[in-house]
Amino acid sequence: MSAAPTVSAPLDPTLLDAVELALADFLAAQKIPENLRAACLHAVLAGGKRLRPILVLESARAAGGSVEGAMPAAVAIEFVHAFSLVHDDLPALDNDTMRRGKPTCHVAFGEAMAILAGDCLLALAPVAAARAAHNAAEIQRELMSGTVRMIAGQVYDTLQGFPDGLPDGQKLELVHHNKTGALLEASCRMGALASGADETTIARLTTYGRATGLMFQIVDDLIDATQTAEHAGKATGKDAEAGKLTYPTVHGLDGSRREIARLRAEASEAIAPLGARAERLAFLLDFLATRTK
Amino acid sequence: MSAAPTVSAPLDPTLLDAVELALADFLAAQKIPENLRAACLHAVLAGGKRLRPILVLESARAAGGSVEGAMPAAVAIEFVHAFSLVHDDLPALDNDTMRRGKPTCHVAFGEAMAILAGDCLLALAPVAAARAAHNAAEIQRELMSGTVRMIAGQVYDTLQGFPDGLPDGQKLELVHHNKTGALLEASCRMGALASGADETTIARLTTYGRATGLMFQIVDDLIDATQTAEHAGKATGKDAEAGKLTYPTVHGLDGSRREIARLRAEASEAIAPLGARAERLAFLLDFLATRTK
Repeated sequence: MSAAPTVSAPLDPTLLDAVELALADFLAAQKIPENLRAACLHAVLAGGKRLRPILVLESARAAGGSVEGAMPAAVAIEFVHAFSLVHDDLPALDNDTMRRGKPTCHVAFGEAMAILAGDCLLALAPVAAARAAHNAAEIQRELMSGTVRMIAGQVYDTLQGFPDGLPDGQKLELVHHNKTGALLEASCRMGALASGADETTIARLTTYGRATGLMFQIVDDLIDATQTAEHAGKATGKDAEAGKLTYPTVHGLDGSRREIARLRAEASEAIAPLGARAERLAFLLDFLATRTK
Repeated sequence: MSAAPTVSAPLDPTLLDAVELALADFLAAQKIPENLRAACLHAVLAGGKRLRPILVLESARAAGGSVEGAMPAAVAIEFVHAFSLVHDDLPALDNDTMRRGKPTCHVAFGEAMAILAGDCLLALAPVAAARAAHNAAEIQRELMSGTVRMIAGQVYDTLQGFPDGLPDGQKLELVHHNKTGALLEASCRMGALASGADETTIARLTTYGRATGLMFQIVDDLIDATQTAEHAGKATGKDAEAGKLTYPTVHGLDGSRREIARLRAEASEAIAPLGARAERLAFLLDFLATRTK
């Protein structure tokens, strides 16, 4: 059991460093072609908030577990996230050439390698997760179930496939709950599972993860809708221009803010009984609710 | 424990029917968009020998386990195989438009959907495997480790990435052991693991799987090098035309035949102590050693 952390920033810098190291170490140890390793490293070590692994590790702490015991699950979820970015960036999907100031994987390594490197990261994820301290079978299953939901959300978002006659509000829910929410919820559950937590604690962290995940996406939508308004003097952002369903277009700006407040309260209440051990999760929630980019 | 089968054909038709049904049932039960489900079904139910699931199930029988207990692992390995075909067929890779007389996934459903359907099948595989009767964590890990090796083999075969100065013979070994061998070996190990087999039995079936997998690929190379297009059911001699490393180009036709005989004997000896329960695996080995297409 690790001591309750002294909180100064929402993302523990020691934890962030440990995640970076674990990601690089795991890839370095794999027996794979050097060009494939380079493409995977390019995709994984491209910076980013490391939100998902941090959620895994802070959930493990909140459940009374150790960072070490949950690190394999943290590495695994970031591999899945990296895989999804590599494939989403492909010409046949979003056709993005730059990400975080660097060429995307297919620009740097070619399209064939980007497809295979994404596949490789996805397949490596459960291999990494299998090393978790407890519940290795459930963690691998949870990780891949979340991944299937994320892919389903991506299909709903970009290629439709909704049941006939579904109202916009319910379509939006399918997209949001799956596309972003699934992996954030899985992160929290994996952290709890890796710590061998009891059912009640797992349920608390599941509620926190689900509410935080949905809130994260609504905040994203709100930033897109309002920041473009400020910068370009338009009433709607690029999501609306692209004809995508967003929380503000379906429920309005005020409706979005009310839902963010509701989900924030729900997540906060869920982890309150975990006490000081969950302090960083509470800070993380505040950070994600109030972020402006 | 299932009774020793009465052998008349190398691939048990009852088992084949059960595999087809289990594949369709599992996909039907998933909560995914209907267009994504259609693309996955197109990829999975496109016919084929079902060699990998049959190896899983016959290995389970040989280890004294049940078909039912190993079926989740059989479904899982076929999902991985189907994923690999969908992605290999993509324009950026082999750019194949037809497979087994039907349009490939990206031709039928578009490139974006083919990428996502392949991803979905890969992610669903461990979810299916997690339902195996025994050793769910090890089976998921084995499945995904084999998948990483298969992807590594595909990179070696098409995008190189070999260590500097490696002789052709060793390059060929890296390609063969990984690209085809990995999943066939994993199939046999998963069947044994799903049956809760002891270490000795797992080791026997691992040796059988590794030798059979390598032999399978050498037979493939030999068919490509020696047979007419009509007989082999596909374009032949195209490996040599593409300048790919094959067993016959590196070790000659006689060398290839000798290696097939050696591997066949090795696989046969490995399972001999398992007795009548392994009879179908023995028939399968003979079938794979002597096939001409």
